[in-house]
Amino acid sequence: MDQIKVFLNEDEMPRQWYNIAADFPHAMPPPLAPNGKPLTPDMLAPVFPMNLIEQEVSTQRWIDIPDEVLQILWQWRPSPLCRATRLEKALGTPAKIFYKNEGVSAPGSHKPNTAVPQAYYNKVFGIKRLSTETGAGQWGSSLAMACQMFGLECKVYMVKISFDQKPFRKIMMQTWGAQCIASPSNETNAGRDILAKDPDCPGSLAIAISEAIEDCVTHKDTRYALGSVLNHVLLHQTIIGLEAKKQFDKIGLYPDVVIGCAGGGSNFAGLSFPFMADKIAGTKNPRIIAVEPAACPKMTRGIFTYDSGDVAMMTPLLPMYSLGHTYVPAPIHAGGLRYHGMAPLVSHAMREGLMEAVAIPQLECYRAAMLFSQTEGFIPAPETSHAIAMTIREANRAKEEGKEKVIVMNWSGHGIMDLSGYQAYLDGKLTDYHLPDSEILKAGECLKDLPKPPPLQ
Amino acid sequence: MDQIKVFLNEDEMPRQWYNIAADFPHAMPPPLAPNGKPLTPDMLAPVFPMNLIEQEVSTQRWIDIPDEVLQILWQWRPSPLCRATRLEKALGTPAKIFYKNEGVSAPGSHKPNTAVPQAYYNKVFGIKRLSTETGAGQWGSSLAMACQMFGLECKVYMVKISFDQKPFRKIMMQTWGAQCIASPSNETNAGRDILAKDPDCPGSLAIAISEAIEDCVTHKDTRYALGSVLNHVLLHQTIIGLEAKKQFDKIGLYPDVVIGCAGGGSNFAGLSFPFMADKIAGTKNPRIIAVEPAACPKMTRGIFTYDSGDVAMMTPLLPMYSLGHTYVPAPIHAGGLRYHGMAPLVSHAMREGLMEAVAIPQLECYRAAMLFSQTEGFIPAPETSHAIAMTIREANRAKEEGKEKVIVMNWSGHGIMDLSGYQAYLDGKLTDYHLPDSEILKAGECLKDLPKPPPLQ
Repeated sequence: MDQIKVFLNEDEMPRQWYNIAADFPHAMPPPLAPNGKPLTPDMLAPVFPMNLIEQEVSTQRWIDIPDEVLQILWQWRPSPLCRATRLEKALGTPAKIFYKNEGVSAPGSHKPNTAVPQAYYNKVFGIKRLSTETGAGQWGSSLAMACQMFGLECKVYMVKISFDQKPFRKIMMQTWGAQCIASPSNETNAGRDILAKDPDCPGSLAIAISEAIEDCVTHKDTRYALGSVLNHVLLHQTIIGLEAKKQFDKIGLYPDVVIGCAGGGSNFAGLSFPFMADKIAGTKNPRIIAVEPAACPKMTRGIFTYDSGDVAMMTPLLPMYSLGHTYVPAPIHAGGLRYHGMAPLVSHAMREGLMEAVAIPQLECYRAAMLFSQTEGFIPAPETSHAIAMTIREANRAKEEGKEKVIVMNWSGHGIMDLSGYQAYLDGKLTDYHLPDSEILKAGECLKDLPKPPPLQ
Repeated sequence: MDQIKVFLNEDEMPRQWYNIAADFPHAMPPPLAPNGKPLTPDMLAPVFPMNLIEQEVSTQRWIDIPDEVLQILWQWRPSPLCRATRLEKALGTPAKIFYKNEGVSAPGSHKPNTAVPQAYYNKVFGIKRLSTETGAGQWGSSLAMACQMFGLECKVYMVKISFDQKPFRKIMMQTWGAQCIASPSNETNAGRDILAKDPDCPGSLAIAISEAIEDCVTHKDTRYALGSVLNHVLLHQTIIGLEAKKQFDKIGLYPDVVIGCAGGGSNFAGLSFPFMADKIAGTKNPRIIAVEPAACPKMTRGIFTYDSGDVAMMTPLLPMYSLGHTYVPAPIHAGGLRYHGMAPLVSHAMREGLMEAVAIPQLECYRAAMLFSQTEGFIPAPETSHAIAMTIREANRAKEEGKEKVIVMNWSGHGIMDLSGYQAYLDGKLTDYHLPDSEILKAGECLKDLPKPPPLQ
């Protein structure tokens, strides 16, 4: 019988994270303060602990994973590298399809890979309490679990419409000891201002970020935590790709194609950066593909620019692919991919020509998710379905070309807390959203007065 | 650092199931037809395929697992054997606590371990369609997935109150191609009769069983599938304990205590029977403990008798511990443990003195589940929390005695589709239900005219 699953023993597990910033051929443009001046580490100090700020600006190639962090990551890691033999058969492809199953963590996705070290470094720095925002709840529940493990308080501002629609995520956070409230809330000036104008406001990620940052800077011993986009977040996720490389070594294979879905960029980077290192070194040449939703196509239809991380422009300006911070994506079910910008490290890898980006519409993704569920059993998150759709395109191409390619995708999370999206699909209520150029141009207007990054040098 | 997780490579995986019926010191009483006469295999033929009936009556010690079944089980197996070091620390116990995580399957529990082979044997026998019932939905969704994998149709009668309260389970079944309808339904005589008398009937497992069996015998090429209680179901679950034994071998340990929660008995038997074999052989002497809810205490407060599997007495009479087939357990959240009887194989092991049973009330189980979630991350199913509560009792006892015991429990499933129970607990709305003797006696009245099994011989 075919080997269909590869594990690692604990003595084979990665003990360091990989920092791709050490290896890029060209320098990355630096982040800027909101006023356009250079950003210094101490300007971030009210929001993040200094040990994480050091990781954020580090150009050291390998960074040790503390034992206290490993001991918790190992509760669900290594995640299995699985061969999707039944999917291959259904497609009739000569390709070998592998998926790295990050759905095995307790919150159900890759998010705790960074939530755990973020809680740890805050704890070590003397912080007692973390604030954050969450949309659909994956990040908030991961940070809740991580804070519980290190005895930190955790306050989560959850976008109100999700808070009402997904009560299970809120209960999950409460089970892990976090306080989760609907945003906009009455607990911050930002929230009160909005409620005064619109008592029925359904909330947005941008509002929730403003509330979480205000909470952080107005509470003693509190810092803020973010689940994607930033360098240190992507760093922590590289454990995915480092494990995958060792797992492929064990079965004597190396992927020709590496695929991940991309919202803020962290799960995509987590799988792909360790393979990208081989590409930079010239020892291997895999195709590396980020998949974004057609409703939020920042890499395929946005521009590379300095932009803010939030609507209220409270964050530093980051050099990234963006549709503009005022862009409001259509309400697709893949909530985790509804973000206007792309992580600076991923954006830079695009500029370096180390990877490609593809945008796929929602219905093709749900069709892919259904085929995956019906062949491999596991029901993917709506975000993950984008990686599956691209994998199927590549497997079909391998069939046309008659090539026995090895494809690996990051299976970033399960969808069993997102089944209402499947219900809508099964009931024929989902549609694709065709984004006109005019809307892209309109959203991009907010970028015109922002500084422009220099050309690659 | 402590080793906290043990996997198996595919070449170490079990290739045969273990049939404890081959090894019991005394003969088991045979099942009887509803009229009290001996039951012959052909009497079961309208309901089960002959290859599964052969397994049901087999006394062969080892039964090969077909390759086609293994290839699917391996999508989530081997399940990891994990050390709960953070739980140990929280308890301050010298005991080493291990849990076998069956929550890693796609439906989230141990149930697909038997759903997959049942679908396979039906397929091989030429059956095109399976009918079944489900309460909370774990079994129905597992059978839906298994039928999808072998191209069988699947019809699930889901207890109406759960159908309405747990819409995600229904969507899960639909995603795997099954048809799931609320029971009582208009599609069977049994359902129509009940609806005629009570249009708002919330349903029960007993009604759903009647509907599923009627569906099976009135449809072409259809058979019925059951998720617990029967010998062949318990046989298929022994892969859990066989893996666990190999995993303990790898780290040079053997458990002193083996614990599982028990509703119909299948997850308990799955972990414990391979260890019980060593006890029968006299080579090892672990304590083996089944944990039932205080609200449904068939082994601790019921009697060993012949009883029917359903209220309508459509099933054969089985020799088992029972509270009586008319017993209606209180609506505790652990729906999978709300069954009046216990599997004949487990009941016989009790009579043989090979194991113990303990009943634990609901609130202690939720406290245990909270402690587990907050230390180990994974949120257990309400059923599983019973095994955790007993594990904590044993770990505390080891502390009192100053003994470094090895304890293993079957972590039978995750609870992230059962979070409403956690909400009720967190809101202080859960209570314990104290079952008076009078209620036990009243329920037992339905047993008085049924045949009595002979003494052990």
